[in-house]
Amino acid sequence: MRTIDWVDGAVELVDQTRLPGECVMLRIHTVSELVAAIQRLAVRGAPALGVAGALGVVLADGDPGEIAALRAARPTAVNLAWGVDQAAAHQGAGREAVLAAALRVRDDDIAACLAMGERGADLLEGDRLRIMTVCNTGGLAAVERGTALGVVQTLHERGRLAEVLALETRPLLQGARLTTWELARMGAPHRLIADSAGPYLLARGEVDAVLIGADRIAANGDTANKIGSYALALGAERAGVPFVVVAPESTIDQHTPSGEHIEIEDRGDEEIVTVRGVRVAPEGTRALNPAFDVTPHDLITAIVTDKRVIRP
Amino acid sequence: MRTIDWVDGAVELVDQTRLPGECVMLRIHTVSELVAAIQRLAVRGAPALGVAGALGVVLADGDPGEIAALRAARPTAVNLAWGVDQAAAHQGAGREAVLAAALRVRDDDIAACLAMGERGADLLEGDRLRIMTVCNTGGLAAVERGTALGVVQTLHERGRLAEVLALETRPLLQGARLTTWELARMGAPHRLIADSAGPYLLARGEVDAVLIGADRIAANGDTANKIGSYALALGAERAGVPFVVVAPESTIDQHTPSGEHIEIEDRGDEEIVTVRGVRVAPEGTRALNPAFDVTPHDLITAIVTDKRVIRP
Repeated sequence: MRTIDWVDGAVELVDQTRLPGECVMLRIHTVSELVAAIQRLAVRGAPALGVAGALGVVLADGDPGEIAALRAARPTAVNLAWGVDQAAAHQGAGREAVLAAALRVRDDDIAACLAMGERGADLLEGDRLRIMTVCNTGGLAAVERGTALGVVQTLHERGRLAEVLALETRPLLQGARLTTWELARMGAPHRLIADSAGPYLLARGEVDAVLIGADRIAANGDTANKIGSYALALGAERAGVPFVVVAPESTIDQHTPSGEHIEIEDRGDEEIVTVRGVRVAPEGTRALNPAFDVTPHDLITAIVTDKRVIRP
Repeated sequence: MRTIDWVDGAVELVDQTRLPGECVMLRIHTVSELVAAIQRLAVRGAPALGVAGALGVVLADGDPGEIAALRAARPTAVNLAWGVDQAAAHQGAGREAVLAAALRVRDDDIAACLAMGERGADLLEGDRLRIMTVCNTGGLAAVERGTALGVVQTLHERGRLAEVLALETRPLLQGARLTTWELARMGAPHRLIADSAGPYLLARGEVDAVLIGADRIAANGDTANKIGSYALALGAERAGVPFVVVAPESTIDQHTPSGEHIEIEDRGDEEIVTVRGVRVAPEGTRALNPAFDVTPHDLITAIVTDKRVIRP
């Protein structure tokens, strides 16, 4: 199963808001449908957003307003804009050239995730590894295999995985809903934890490495990723546990010198005062809801990309 | 309103599992009812558990098995055992003496929280304070006023509170359900955040002090408190923000030399794979659910008790 693909003249993608209850494929024919799917997180994950951006340019069919709207649908995710740009660069050569460029973005992601999985597994030492991770960075965040969870998958295939401790990842519970679902499909041992338990379980010696994805990596290595990543980095540093970012080269934004220049999306009150549609706070309660945080490069042991290992 | 009290021959307490939807008072006539209420967190919070323990001894009416069961109902909370011991020490003198001792525990808590509020507010510098806190440490965790949230209340009464950032506090959402409810009743400005956002918002400079309660403080100052406290301590240290524990003297356990000797309750899978009764993870998902963590004393700026300020 591919998370996102081009099938018979339309974008097909797994509606991730329905998982783990149901696995529903959406067919998307217009840019406005695609922008809505991106904003409600039916498709999410940096690599998958890159592919969505590229395929969306095919749907835009040269309309500059639609291309701009697509490019800006999620400000923190550099891959979305990057994917749009990859396909849009071929507009002068016609629709078939744009489609071919978009399919290259898809195919390159499949190859890149495979390469990251192998490079990340090679980097880590030990035979019975206990891995902690946040959000979902598996096949559901990409096309076929994932980034940080792609490394987990390779470790599992090599018989080197003892267990994954997956953070549930409030507010949208991608860890509880998606990462557990993928790990169960892989047959990989795992337990779910509250986000706030991550740093403490690191201190208690229950983790050999933290693996996370990235939504944007600044030129100096500062990394924007799902809210909660920074807390794990602090916990890993104090516990002396490696903290490894796994992301394709396209996530590195050389135009952003450091983390303080990364715009962090605030997703508003509703996601915090409710959980899966159930209200948990009194009526009228306001929230502050940064969807991402920035981990300074000095807390990052290594960044594994499809091309290299960077030690910031 | 008192969170817990002795009224007409029975223990009356607010059923905190029903808040913020409804504010229901329970009347409890037996120790087994009280143990069940403690274990399902209808009554929680270290000071309130101390009062529950003391009043429960009155209900036990000298039965040693019931007293032992009550004392062990929640292993991390030292105040529960302490409250039981305060009342049980008077058993030789008859039921009225036990009741009088238990009511002294209640009255001492009311006075202690008032004292902690004033001492904590005196300790903090600044006129427009932005406070971050986790779990619920307000009147609902005590009898009338709380510990960490008691300091917030005093700051607010003195016109020195700008805002509270309250962590929602998964898995049981005491922050989302109870702290917001109390802050709204006080008229204190507040916003709710995901637990994982705490350390990042500290890094972003949005907080002047972190105030937390405690379930048990070891002799060296290591502090067991709601899961997530340790992550805030790491974030506060890196951001250079004061991290202050507010708890009555009875929380200090001189028989426990350091945090590694504190037993941490694991509350099982169900609280993690569901949220307010709604399933969020696939069937069969296992969880790891430490209800508390331990913050090492070197990360604690000050411990404010009803008698003194300790700088570990």
